[in-house]
Formats: sequence, C-alpha cells, structure tokens
Amino acid sequence: MWFQERLNIATKGRGMVEISRDIESLVASSGATCGLCHLFLQHTSASLILCENADPNVRADLELFMGDFVADGDSRYSHVQEGSDDMPAHIRSVITQSEMTIPIDNGSLALGIWQGVYLWEHRTAPHRRILMVTIHAPS
Amino acid sequence: MWFQERLNIATKGRGMVEISRDIESLVASSGATCGLCHLFLQHTSASLILCENADPNVRADLELFMGDFVADGDSRYSHVQEGSDDMPAHIRSVITQSEMTIPIDNGSLALGIWQGVYLWEHRTAPHRRILMVTIHAPS
Amino acid sequence: MWFQERLNIATKGRGMVEISRDIESLVASSGATCGLCHLFLQHTSASLILCENADPNVRADLELFMGDFVADGDSRYSHVQEGSDDMPAHIRSVITQSEMTIPIDNGSLALGIWQGVYLWEHRTAPHRRILMVTIHAPS
Repeated sequence: MWFQERLNIATKGRGMVEISRDIESLVASSGATCGLCHLFLQHTSASLILCENADPNVRADLELFMGDFVADGDSRYSHVQEGSDDMPAHIRSVITQSEMTIPIDNGSLALGIWQGVYLWEHRTAPHRRILMVTIHAPS
Repeated sequence: MWFQERLNIATKGRGMVEISRDIESLVASSGATCGLCHLFLQHTSASLILCENADPNVRADLELFMGDFVADGDSRYSHVQEGSDDMPAHIRSVITQSEMTIPIDNGSLALGIWQGVYLWEHRTAPHRRILMVTIHAPS
Repeated sequence: MWFQERLNIATKGRGMVEISRDIESLVASSGATCGLCHLFLQHTSASLILCENADPNVRADLELFMGDFVADGDSRYSHVQEGSDDMPAHIRSVITQSEMTIPIDNGSLALGIWQGVYLWEHRTAPHRRILMVTIHAPS
C-alpha cells in the first residue's frame, strides 16, 4: 500500500516547528498499521530533525549552538543577494538533513518516548514549506 | 515481504559500537535477497553512522573532533539538569543522524569494503539503546 | 516493483558533482511513476547532499565553510597514513550523510525547484565512486 501527500507548513521565521502530530494524522488516514513513513522537504534552507520533545530549552540551546557555529553575515560568503541569513541557512540545511524515514508500528510512528519530529526553519523571515510524505506499508 | 524487529544494544558510555553484524544477522533471518534495510534509533542522544571500519584511529579521531566541536559543560546551555554531557549529546545527535537505510544485495547489506555501521553513544554513562530495524524486500 | 543498479561516478577531486540527471535517467528506465528512490554511497570519504542548484557560489561558499570547519592536516589526528585530507574526509562524510531517499512523483524525482542532488567528493585527488540506486514503486 502506497500513500503520498504534500503538507504545507507555515513557519514563523528561524526556529523549530513540531510536526509529529501532522505526520501522525497522515499515518492514521493511510490506514497503515506497520511499514515506513518517508518525509522529504523540498527546500534547501530548512531541515527535518528528530529532537528531544520534553524540555523547550533543548531547542533553544540547539538554536544558540547553531547560530554560533554558522554565523549570519559571515563576510567570506559570495552568495549574499538574498540576505545575510541565506547562505547560513543553506549550510545549516546541509549540516543537518532534509529527509528522513520513520518506522510505523501499531498504526503510529515508532518514535522514542522523548522524540519529536521538527521542521527547522533556518531563514529569519516566515516561510511556507512543502513537505512530501510517502507512506508505504504491507497491503 | 516486510520484517520488523527491535534490537536492544548496550553501550559502555561515549564511543562507537559496531552493529554491522547484528544487522546482517537480521537480514539473514528475514530471508531477503535484495531490498532495503531501515535502521531507526529511538533516542535523541545517540547516533547511527557509516564509518571507516579498518583503522580504529578513525573512530578515535572522530571522537576527538566531536568532543572539541561540541564541548561538554558549555556554560551557555540552559538544559543542564541531566548532566554536562546531555545537551552536547542532543547536539551531536542532530548534527549526525539517528536513522538510515542500507540496500540489500545478494542477501547481505550492500556496504562498501571499508564501511561499517556504528551506533555512536554520546552520553558518558553506559546506556541501553533500542534500534528498530525494518527490512523490506520483493516477496 | 523493485529496480536496483550501481552507478559509477568519476570525481575530479574535492568538490561537488551534480548527479540529479543521472538519477532521473534511472527513474525513467525503471518506469516508476510514483514511489521512492534510495541512494547509497559505498564510501566513507564522500557524501550525498541536497543543495541549492541555481547559484554556483552556494557550493563554493559551502566548500569554504567546510574547509575551515574541518581543517586538513590537523596535527591532532592519528589516522594520517593516507594523507592530510583523509581523516578530514571521513569527518566531513559523517557530519553530512552518505545515503538518502527521494520521493518519485509523476515519473520524476520530486525535488524542489532549487534542489539538486550532489555527490560531494572530500578527497583532494580524483576518485571513482560507486552509488547504489534502489527504486521501489507500486507495480
């Protein structure tokens, strides 16, 4: 059984948006009880990550770390036409990832207890991001 | 054909545990001759990596690099309740990855000659880690 | 429907080679109209990345960033027998990724408008790299 759908996710600028429940809804709609769920972000300046979902400080610390590691406005960059956060956004996306597969078990994503799925917006301005979800399961 | 099983992997604290053979055993049990094998770690403070498997110095140098890059006990972090290695472990996990898919060919993982699959424990204390393995192959 | 084939890709030394069209050709050969395409690099000193494909400066800036982040010839490394770019190449590969899955829609890779698939060679000398492509689609 195959199920493919695009999700349109609004971001508020740089930061993480939890999308676990959006994905769970699609898994429920698909009727899959076991199998695999693949997520693909059609953008090169945002990421998909699995992150601790209990303490919001984890995301804040991660943002702090990344902002320091890949500094906005680095004067060495040539790709600067779209703003000082654009090249850093591409780097942050390559350093993390923009696609992932999550197993489905008992009709749900087989995430760990403290694991959430996040879309990490790397641009400072709000964006709309297209996430392609492909669910594949025994028929 | 679908096959799904959880592996319980003991770690001795920070460092890499080769799990190529554990995965190969499951591939053999599944009877798959070609197809895909997906690995998913249900944790946010450990990673799955593909790494050179001949010279142990590669893993030692990688640990050295990562320890310097994501320093334990960084005073900027707010998420410190579970120890000075906890937030770094979350960062190390996001910077690498916690899931991957490996092709199956001729009844085995189609790894390169020098490629091994490793679970990278990022916490300093020993842990038990759950790895969900999903094998999918033509029936 | 399953389709599995190895591509042999020549690199000119450190830098990115766009492989989107090579993958598209295999998708066309497979006859898949929807489904998933998995890419697996059988090497630990090169990566697969999704990157902005319009402005070549993005790849140049990414190379600049990575070269500064993971310096060649770092005197702390023990794994130095194969040259000063070898251990950095392993680190660069672990920090990025060597496998990915891309959805297929309407008989093509469902990439974003500005998204290209690149093989990132991390060694300074030219190499031949084996990429295993597995396409899986409803029959």
